[in-house]
Amino acid sequence: MRDHSVQPQATDLPPLHQCPMRVVYADTDAGGVVYHARYLDMAERARAEMMFALGLSEFIQSKPGEPSGNLLVVRRVEIDYLRPARLYDDLTVTSYVKKLGGSSFDLLQEISGHDQILVRINLVLVWIDGQFRPQRLPARLRQVLAARGV
Amino acid sequence: MRDHSVQPQATDLPPLHQCPMRVVYADTDAGGVVYHARYLDMAERARAEMMFALGLSEFIQSKPGEPSGNLLVVRRVEIDYLRPARLYDDLTVTSYVKKLGGSSFDLLQEISGHDQILVRINLVLVWIDGQFRPQRLPARLRQVLAARGV
Amino acid sequence: MRDHSVQPQATDLPPLHQCPMRVVYADTDAGGVVYHARYLDMAERARAEMMFALGLSEFIQSKPGEPSGNLLVVRRVEIDYLRPARLYDDLTVTSYVKKLGGSSFDLLQEISGHDQILVRINLVLVWIDGQFRPQRLPARLRQVLAARGV
Amino acid sequence: MRDHSVQPQATDLPPLHQCPMRVVYADTDAGGVVYHARYLDMAERARAEMMFALGLSEFIQSKPGEPSGNLLVVRRVEIDYLRPARLYDDLTVTSYVKKLGGSSFDLLQEISGHDQILVRINLVLVWIDGQFRPQRLPARLRQVLAARGV
Repeated sequence: MRDHSVQPQATDLPPLHQCPMRVVYADTDAGGVVYHARYLDMAERARAEMMFALGLSEFIQSKPGEPSGNLLVVRRVEIDYLRPARLYDDLTVTSYVKKLGGSSFDLLQEISGHDQILVRINLVLVWIDGQFRPQRLPARLRQVLAARGV
Repeated sequence: MRDHSVQPQATDLPPLHQCPMRVVYADTDAGGVVYHARYLDMAERARAEMMFALGLSEFIQSKPGEPSGNLLVVRRVEIDYLRPARLYDDLTVTSYVKKLGGSSFDLLQEISGHDQILVRINLVLVWIDGQFRPQRLPARLRQVLAARGV
Repeated sequence: MRDHSVQPQATDLPPLHQCPMRVVYADTDAGGVVYHARYLDMAERARAEMMFALGLSEFIQSKPGEPSGNLLVVRRVEIDYLRPARLYDDLTVTSYVKKLGGSSFDLLQEISGHDQILVRINLVLVWIDGQFRPQRLPARLRQVLAARGV
Repeated sequence: MRDHSVQPQATDLPPLHQCPMRVVYADTDAGGVVYHARYLDMAERARAEMMFALGLSEFIQSKPGEPSGNLLVVRRVEIDYLRPARLYDDLTVTSYVKKLGGSSFDLLQEISGHDQILVRINLVLVWIDGQFRPQRLPARLRQVLAARGV
């Protein structure tokens, strides 16, 4: 959260999307809690549902490897593990857009359960072409994200 | 499907449960399709939803390691890969009980998409105690499964 | 193991390859044991090491999606879970070729630890083209596998 | 890397450990590259090998759930994705200790391939008791890590 000073608190932002997620054995580890890397899988699942719900699925649909196909990729992730989630917990992934750049945007995804935030994930997503070069965010993608209060 | 001769065809059985499942990147591999082991994760997720939907969640809730806690574990799996599933496919996992034994039961889980069966999973699930010894299936679990037409 | 009657016992076959594998948290679940689907990940990892060790890596290297590139894919899997593996267990995956067909071959992969077989995986691997059509196994692949005693 | 100003550059530190890692299908996604969450799995695998290699395995061996058992858990992760890794790449995970605190330490894990750093992972690991309360790092653990040049 490099820009605390200039950005509103996450809790002041309207959420872009909320996604329910039940913890199953596949998500857990021998510590009896969710394996720390699986929260990133959950976050990706929640982003996919968000893009479909917001009518933005075309921006995650281009075939990998297509010369013309641009892709949204994760450039950077920060994860704070606050409290553990456990088997069969009913979680919610709440996604907020925090910053809109020229070819990238910052998302905050909070994973909560039992009325508490358990894990906080900040991501930088970049719009790239087939040679992994950043490209200007498509106007409609930018428009929908901007309308959500960034 | 070792008991073709004495069991009805899967398609003749009433399904126990149907569970929607969207394929995301986490499920796929560099072949552009769902990674073959991930179908087992999907099947576990679908079984968990099934147990909650049928009011049977108590039978998957016992804390691992509790001396008194019995568990339902997978003893055997057969998977037939008929057609590949791809990124963002909308899949359905349909679960059928095929056989009820003393301490175990057989499930068939079919994963379908685009109106076709893509993957067929047959599992033997066993009810064990903390020392991995088979125990008699609880009466209520047996009753609910039996009511589904086995 | 559909062909017990005509095939030698697995233990009579010379192993194609042995691969060490240490269990880490990523492999386990809240039951305190290896998650049942992760054994398939381990088996794939062991097959990759086997193909490199046998000088057969060219047959797993073709770029997915290349029109000319044939691929080795898993068509069918049977898994028997005999005993659980646990965190930090030192496992060995031993691979045997059980049957050589025209466009496919059968592998047995046994995952052992503490001098016991824990999981037995039987797979049918098929050599397919970009349209998922079976193709005749390449001569050199067949030759190397056949030299191992099938 | 919050403390650039007071810490030496990673490349100035002697590495604690280096761990080879081959990319297999299980690690990849439909983008043809390693799935972004799987680098955390690789990093955990490398840390486990490191702890065994450094004679520190006792500190990752306590049974989860044991009242007396302290655990090393991940409190915070930062991941920078610089370049993609691909199927069958031969990667190396190089681990450096960056900071030793009272109950925690910071690790840098660089995942490299083709003579380039592909992914840089900074982690904060905390030594906790069964109630998830931070505990003072064991003397021997501290000693071995400190001897590596922090």
